[in-house]
Amino acid sequence: MRTTFFALAIVGFSVFAAGDSSASDKGADTLRRLEAEFMQSAIEHGSTGYMSYYADDAVELPNGAVILQGKEAIGKTMGFLDNKDNRLTWTPVGADISASGDLGYTYGTYEFHSKDKDGKSVVSRGKYTSIWKKQKDGTWKVVLDMGNADPELK
Amino acid sequence: MRTTFFALAIVGFSVFAAGDSSASDKGADTLRRLEAEFMQSAIEHGSTGYMSYYADDAVELPNGAVILQGKEAIGKTMGFLDNKDNRLTWTPVGADISASGDLGYTYGTYEFHSKDKDGKSVVSRGKYTSIWKKQKDGTWKVVLDMGNADPELK
Repeated sequence: MRTTFFALAIVGFSVFAAGDSSASDKGADTLRRLEAEFMQSAIEHGSTGYMSYYADDAVELPNGAVILQGKEAIGKTMGFLDNKDNRLTWTPVGADISASGDLGYTYGTYEFHSKDKDGKSVVSRGKYTSIWKKQKDGTWKVVLDMGNADPELK
Repeated sequence: MRTTFFALAIVGFSVFAAGDSSASDKGADTLRRLEAEFMQSAIEHGSTGYMSYYADDAVELPNGAVILQGKEAIGKTMGFLDNKDNRLTWTPVGADISASGDLGYTYGTYEFHSKDKDGKSVVSRGKYTSIWKKQKDGTWKVVLDMGNADPELK
């Protein structure tokens, strides 16, 4: 009986502690789930799968290159995802969403596996931020994506 | 008379064309204005002025370094803004805000003016994304900031 009461007390406290952040947490979970689907789509369908998650008016801020405006311009730089030697994976570290549930973001780390000119496997690591916006048709799309580098390994 | 009618027609069309994006445009203008104040604060008050625009739970994704979690950890890396030889300026290129007006972002370009070891003025240029969130006290703070490099000059 004491155990039951203690368990109920914990549940009660947890519900209380979650408070007004539960809607936001739920929205952030939506973005994490979307991001997993986005990555799977890129792994299975290369650049076409990757770009299918971008909004028409998306912006890309690539490291060491100029800002790319629009899905069409961004798509032209993503052909490397169609090379079977290349594999881009990423892991969200954090996510948040607006109260209205129409704008949110994720950030995290990525790994890019490829092969050097001698055919040896190489991996580069970095970080990313993706901003997601709900479109007029109800789907979520990436409206901004940016990446940069991890510290160089000594 | 024809000229007047034509002018009125243009005004009418402009109002119509603005449609439901006007609230969003107004919110994005708020972020652009905030960003100008943010920059001025950094120029006038160094790292203290810069960090006064960060939320306590902010995240920094610096190029070539690991993710920094929290205003305190980020603040420890911003001391370079207190050196009078250093000057960081930035210019937003785009901005957007959620329908609920509590989450938004800006992105653009930055210039970092400093001096090399011989005292010669040097400038490095890059891009940034800043995500802003309205806090419980009604103020807007940066919750995520990320930068990366422009193309290297040949």
